[in-house]
Amino acid sequence: MVRLVVGPGPAGGDRRAAGVTGPFWLADTGAEWTDEPSVVAGHRLDRSGVQPHGSPLAVAFPRGVEQVREVVRGAYATRTPIVTRGAGTALTGASTAGEGVIVLDLSRMDRIREIRADDGVAVTEPGVITAQLDRAAAAHGLRYAPDPASLEISTIGGNIATNAGGLRCAKYGVTRDAVLGLDVVLADGRLIRTGRATLKGVAGYDLTGLFVGSEGTLGVIVGATLRLRPLPEPTTTIAASYGAVADAAAASVALAGARIQPVLAELLDEATLDAIDADQGTHLRKAASALLIVQIDGGAAEAARALEVLGTDATDVRSTADPAETAALLAARRGALPAIERLGRPLIEDIAVPRSRLAEAVREIGAIARRYDITICTLAHAGDGNLHPIIVADETMVAATAAADEIFALALRLGGTVTGEHGVGVLKRAWLRRELGPDNHDLQRQLKSLFDPYGLLNPGKAL
Amino acid sequence: MVRLVVGPGPAGGDRRAAGVTGPFWLADTGAEWTDEPSVVAGHRLDRSGVQPHGSPLAVAFPRGVEQVREVVRGAYATRTPIVTRGAGTALTGASTAGEGVIVLDLSRMDRIREIRADDGVAVTEPGVITAQLDRAAAAHGLRYAPDPASLEISTIGGNIATNAGGLRCAKYGVTRDAVLGLDVVLADGRLIRTGRATLKGVAGYDLTGLFVGSEGTLGVIVGATLRLRPLPEPTTTIAASYGAVADAAAASVALAGARIQPVLAELLDEATLDAIDADQGTHLRKAASALLIVQIDGGAAEAARALEVLGTDATDVRSTADPAETAALLAARRGALPAIERLGRPLIEDIAVPRSRLAEAVREIGAIARRYDITICTLAHAGDGNLHPIIVADETMVAATAAADEIFALALRLGGTVTGEHGVGVLKRAWLRRELGPDNHDLQRQLKSLFDPYGLLNPGKAL
Repeated sequence: MVRLVVGPGPAGGDRRAAGVTGPFWLADTGAEWTDEPSVVAGHRLDRSGVQPHGSPLAVAFPRGVEQVREVVRGAYATRTPIVTRGAGTALTGASTAGEGVIVLDLSRMDRIREIRADDGVAVTEPGVITAQLDRAAAAHGLRYAPDPASLEISTIGGNIATNAGGLRCAKYGVTRDAVLGLDVVLADGRLIRTGRATLKGVAGYDLTGLFVGSEGTLGVIVGATLRLRPLPEPTTTIAASYGAVADAAAASVALAGARIQPVLAELLDEATLDAIDADQGTHLRKAASALLIVQIDGGAAEAARALEVLGTDATDVRSTADPAETAALLAARRGALPAIERLGRPLIEDIAVPRSRLAEAVREIGAIARRYDITICTLAHAGDGNLHPIIVADETMVAATAAADEIFALALRLGGTVTGEHGVGVLKRAWLRRELGPDNHDLQRQLKSLFDPYGLLNPGKAL
Repeated sequence: MVRLVVGPGPAGGDRRAAGVTGPFWLADTGAEWTDEPSVVAGHRLDRSGVQPHGSPLAVAFPRGVEQVREVVRGAYATRTPIVTRGAGTALTGASTAGEGVIVLDLSRMDRIREIRADDGVAVTEPGVITAQLDRAAAAHGLRYAPDPASLEISTIGGNIATNAGGLRCAKYGVTRDAVLGLDVVLADGRLIRTGRATLKGVAGYDLTGLFVGSEGTLGVIVGATLRLRPLPEPTTTIAASYGAVADAAAASVALAGARIQPVLAELLDEATLDAIDADQGTHLRKAASALLIVQIDGGAAEAARALEVLGTDATDVRSTADPAETAALLAARRGALPAIERLGRPLIEDIAVPRSRLAEAVREIGAIARRYDITICTLAHAGDGNLHPIIVADETMVAATAAADEIFALALRLGGTVTGEHGVGVLKRAWLRRELGPDNHDLQRQLKSLFDPYGLLNPGKAL
C-alpha cells in the first residue's frame, strides 16, 4: 500500500482506481506527498508531549515556492487546514497536527541560496538547519547570531516562526533581530515579499516582524533574508560555582549592575547539574549547587571585571580561553534538556522576568517545587532574565500542571512574560489572554482573521 | 481673542457665548487646547517643506494618557482626523496637518518615568527628547543607542513612529531594536500595552513592531519601554580623506569585507564638505573630495585593522581618541543638514542599498546631478548602505523632483529601498506601492483599515 505520489498523480477517477485515498488534489500540486500511516504518524507530534486529537490526512514535501503555493491554494479551495512544519522541534505543541489536517513539511527546502559576505546578508530557504547556516557564514568570517539550544536540529523557518532565542542573544539579539525580509505565501496562495535586502529600511508597516513569531498562523514562510555579523574577537569563558542557586542568580544580576555585557550567561541549578552529570559522565555538580557559565568578548578588561564580580560570592571560579574547554562547558549546557528528558516526562517552561528579579524568581520556583513535592530543574539565560524551569512530571501530570500554572502566575507577578522564547503553541493559549489583556488579545484575533479568514493556517495554535 | 482653554471649558451654549469656536468637545477632554491661529500655523508643517491643503482646526496638548484617550475618543465620536506630533522634525511630511484636522501635540508628555539600570530598561512618555534620555541613561553607565542626527530636537515618540535610524545604528541597531513595549491608544480610545518589560518575550504577535515605524497611522503611542545598553569601551575615531567620493564608498565596503564592525561610518561628499565649511568655518574640504568618519569600539586591534583598510586609498588618514577632536568631527557631521539648508531648499532623500553597492550608488547619483545640472550633496551612513542625497532645489522643484524619482528608481534597481530611516510620509507614497508590490501594499491597506476603520489617524500619510 505505497501511497507516495511523486509529481502529478493519476487524474480524476483513476486515483480512486489506483487506491489513492485522502486529499487527491495534492497530486496536482507538483509536490511529493504521502498518506502512508507511518509517515503521517511521524508528523503528528512535536517535542512538547502534546497529543492532538486524531491524525493528519497527509504530509506534503514541497521542494520549491511554487509547489508550496499550489498546496496552499488547494487547501484554501477545499478549506483544508494546514500545519507548516520544519524539524518539529517545537516545545509548545505549535507543530502538532491532528484530525483533518495536511502537514506542509518544508524540511526539503533546505538550500542556502546566497551568502553575500560584503553585504552581511544570507538568503535561505526555510528548511535549512540553523547550525549549517552558521557554519556556512563562518567560512566567510561571519556568523548567524541566534543560537537556540536546538540549533543542530531545528530549521531557520521554525526559528523564525517562533522567534527563537538562544544563548548568545543576551548580547547579539534573538531571531527577530536577524531577519531583514521574508518571502511569505499567504492563506490564499499569493506570494509576498516583506522587509528588504538592505540592513536598514522603513518602507511600510513591519510585516516581517509580524510574521516572525507568528507560529505558522498568518502565512507560510518560504524564504528569508537574514543578517550576518562579523565573528567576534576571541572569547573568555568563565565558570563560576555557587553554594546556592539564588547566589548564582544574584551574581548574574551583579554583572548587569557592573554594566558588563556578557555574550551569554547560563545558569544551571543543582537538579540540572545532577541530570547532566548522570547523562554525560561529567562532574559539574561536585561541591557546587549552581553553576554560572559566562562568556565575554568585549576584551580583557571586561573579562577581568566579570571575573571579579562573579568571584565575590562564588565557591569556585575559573576562566578559560581554551577552545576545547569552552566547547565542553557549552556542550554540557546544550545537553541539559536531553539529560533531563531521561529523568521523566519533562514539562519545559519558559518564563522571562526583568533581569533584576531573577534571584527572586529562582527562589520562588524552588518553593513551588517543594510545595508540590516534585523535581524542577531550572536553567536560565540569566543575561536576559529568561528562565527554563523544567518540571519532571509523572504520568498523571496533575502536580506538574498545577506547578506550571503557579510558575506562569509568578512570571506575571514579577512583571514578566509566560514565554521568553519558545512561543505559545497550544500549551500557553489560556495564559496568553491573561498576559496581553482582552483588548490586545482581541486585536490579535482580528489580525489573525485578516490574514487567514477561514482559519486554515495552524488552527488552534498561538492565539 | 485668546482661545486657550485650560481644563474643562465653559459647557454647552456658554462656549459659543464665550467666543470659543472650533471643535468644542476638546474642552471636555481635560487637555489644554487652542485654536489660536499663530499656534495652529506653527503646527501645520514639519521639516519636509510639504505644504498641506488648508489649516488644522486646533491643537491639543495633553499631559497624560487619560487626556490623550479623551481627545481620541472625541475625535472618534465626531469622526475628526488626528495628526499626532512630537517635535515636528519629520523630513517626509509625516507630521504635516491640513484642513479639518486636530493636532495632538505630545511634546508636554516629556517625563522619563523610570530608569531601571539593572534591568537595562527605561520607561518614558513619548515627548521626551531623545538626547535627554541618552544623557539620563549615561548617569547610570548606560545609553540609549539609536541616535538620529536630530537627537537634540526630536522626541522618542517621533523616533518610534518613524523607526528612526542614526549614526551608530550600524553596530547598535535602529529604534525598532531598542523598543521592548509600547502603550498605545487605539483609534476608538482603548488603551493597550504591547510587548513586554523584559529583554525577551514572544507572547502573541509582534504588535510593538507593527506600531514602530507606522507614522501615527495605526494608533497613538503614549508610553514606551526601551532597552538601554552598557556604555561601550573607549572609542577610536578615524577620519580618512579621499580624492573621489567613489573611493570613500569603496573604502567603506572594504571595511565590511575585512569583517570590521564600525560603530558608525559616515561618508560626506565634496558638496557636503563645502556646505559644512561655509556654515561652520571648518576646513574639512581642503585637499579632500570626500571624507569618511569611522568609529571603532571593538578594541585596539580592530582599530588598527580599520586604519590599515581605510588608509589604502586615502589621501590622508588620521586617528584620534581625543574626546574634543572626536566631538568636533561628529558635530561637523550632525551639522551637515542645517549647513546644506542654507544653500537653498533641500529635498532630502534617504535611500538604502545593499552595502556592497554603495560605490555604484554614489557614482550614479553623481551622474544624475550632472544630467539635471543641479547640486546634490550626498552623505551616507556607509556602514549600513543608507544614503542621503540632498538635492538643492530651486523654487520650481521641477528638476529636483525628476532627479529624486531617478534616485528612487536607482535604489530599487540596486536591490534597495526608497527609505532607509526617514519613512514614507507624503513624499514617498507613490513609490511605496512600487517597492512593496501590489499584494503586500493591499495587505498593508487592510491592516490600516483594521486598526483605523474610519481613516482618522494621520490620514493620507505612510500608505
